Amino acid sequence: MTALCFDGRSVCVVTTNEPPALPPGEARIRMRLAGVCGTDLEIARGYLGFRGVLGHEFVGEVVEAASPGLQGARVVGAINCACQRCDFCSRGLPNHCPSRTVLGILGRDGVFQDTFTLPERNLYRVPDAVPDEHAVFAEPLAAACRVVEQVDIAPWQRVAVLGDGRIGVLCAYVLAEKSHSVTLFGRRPGRVPFPIAVEERPVPEQIRDRFAVVVEATGSPEGLAAALRLVEPLGTVVLKSTCAAPHATNLAPIVIDEVKVVGSRCGSLPAALELMAASRVPLASLISARISLADGAAALARAAEPGVLKVLIEGKPRP
Amino acid sequence: MTALCFDGRSVCVVTTNEPPALPPGEARIRMRLAGVCGTDLEIARGYLGFRGVLGHEFVGEVVEAASPGLQGARVVGAINCACQRCDFCSRGLPNHCPSRTVLGILGRDGVFQDTFTLPERNLYRVPDAVPDEHAVFAEPLAAACRVVEQVDIAPWQRVAVLGDGRIGVLCAYVLAEKSHSVTLFGRRPGRVPFPIAVEERPVPEQIRDRFAVVVEATGSPEGLAAALRLVEPLGTVVLKSTCAAPHATNLAPIVIDEVKVVGSRCGSLPAALELMAASRVPLASLISARISLADGAAALARAAEPGVLKVLIEGKPRP
Repeated sequence: MTALCFDGRSVCVVTTNEPPALPPGEARIRMRLAGVCGTDLEIARGYLGFRGVLGHEFVGEVVEAASPGLQGARVVGAINCACQRCDFCSRGLPNHCPSRTVLGILGRDGVFQDTFTLPERNLYRVPDAVPDEHAVFAEPLAAACRVVEQVDIAPWQRVAVLGDGRIGVLCAYVLAEKSHSVTLFGRRPGRVPFPIAVEERPVPEQIRDRFAVVVEATGSPEGLAAALRLVEPLGTVVLKSTCAAPHATNLAPIVIDEVKVVGSRCGSLPAALELMAASRVPLASLISARISLADGAAALARAAEPGVLKVLIEGKPRP
Repeated sequence: MTALCFDGRSVCVVTTNEPPALPPGEARIRMRLAGVCGTDLEIARGYLGFRGVLGHEFVGEVVEAASPGLQGARVVGAINCACQRCDFCSRGLPNHCPSRTVLGILGRDGVFQDTFTLPERNLYRVPDAVPDEHAVFAEPLAAACRVVEQVDIAPWQRVAVLGDGRIGVLCAYVLAEKSHSVTLFGRRPGRVPFPIAVEERPVPEQIRDRFAVVVEATGSPEGLAAALRLVEPLGTVVLKSTCAAPHATNLAPIVIDEVKVVGSRCGSLPAALELMAASRVPLASLISARISLADGAAALARAAEPGVLKVLIEGKPRP
């Protein structure tokens, strides 16, 4: 077993003998492809105090499961593993179960290893027409879909995305399914092809236009202040960035302009798979590099370089 | 003419000869009683860069108006003076008119003077049954009513107010009209009588209960972080405090718990007058002191003392 671990100080590849026994209700999954996310990089800087195997974006193949139909299935998976008993679980909100573990983020080893486990109920089959190179984006694309689950967006509403990194680009695609006018503010226009509804622009020095909805996806603690300059009074800022460091932000504009700031985390995997099956998002064009698991530390370093979009980690071929 | 002014450095009483000419569409109002608000104290510390006559909470008597029916009327007034032409005004949102002036806050002299002016359309008659000592709370009570205009609160939802100062106390009364369970977290319980739905408690060291809705009314830049500890996942924090100083706040809980943070400013004066007419809020018990306009600087100093609720400034009796 090869695994990319964070021990609280550094990221390194670890080799172990046998995988642990399969917990009840869970399936063992062979990692085919995994994606490096900004959250992995934040965790490797100490965010959330996680220790263990990193990674939560994957497409894999079930190699061991109690349910016979699952064996051999190509799957993606929801990363929140809930207790199924608490008030949030009973209200259909497992992503907010207070006892949850989260794949590679909170109390559960992640996907940057040869095989890992997840509850069977967290798994979704990948349609045959969706290649691994697309399916590996299921989790971040679902996180982008979450924005339109939380905020109603009318076709005529002007929306903006702040930050053209991994999540910002995916949010722009998802928002273009709803609004005829999406402005993506970023530093590196022209890297990926967008539908006509999306206009790429550098972050303006002087704010001229203001937007009904601004998705903050900079990954930076300064992002909220910038989003508050772009949003119109009574508008909505969707906050996507989770940053380890507190940041001094002037909150008075939230009150004066009666802005709504909505935190946004994980979304619906079926919605993401549907979008993939319709091939409306050219996901392959977001791939900056593919690196083998044995070179996992290099993959994280590459993902941290400015301008790099998605770095994929390749699992071992089927034995 | 006596007026309490802030010149950018200090607050002082100024005496002038004649009041300026009445602008078209406006009425001249003799100040009967005015209230000192936390925003006045923030402005006197440099917030928003305002220079001029302070004050925006008042009950007064119209002494000059183009509309003959208004003459002599006892009135309260909306503090936002809008252009009536822009997109926000045409959508019925004058409080967010980008060209607005705001009484004693932005580009318009306030009410801590013998007489002042406001557009006639901003004025609301005070019912005879409501005494001046209650009517002077119209503006802050409307600001408290704004919370329930913005957030739907079901009777069974547990709500909290953080901060038992001027605005926090009024928010607790208004929320008790909607929810059967309102917890007011503050430092000085027992100062005012509350209905049975309101429980007063000190701010807890350890968070045990979490709330669907938390109204942040501490007046302190640390308030948001405290509110985020009290709100449940997917809950709502209503932000009432406007603070001059940016503050380092860890925003990650907003994202992780998918909390909604809603800025909240001015509310509906008719709603506040209706609540007053029903005598459901014992407003007189919130009055800490009454001080004449000539001693206005002392009134602001008194309002800034810990534990003081509402300080009223008395206008001159009718000549």
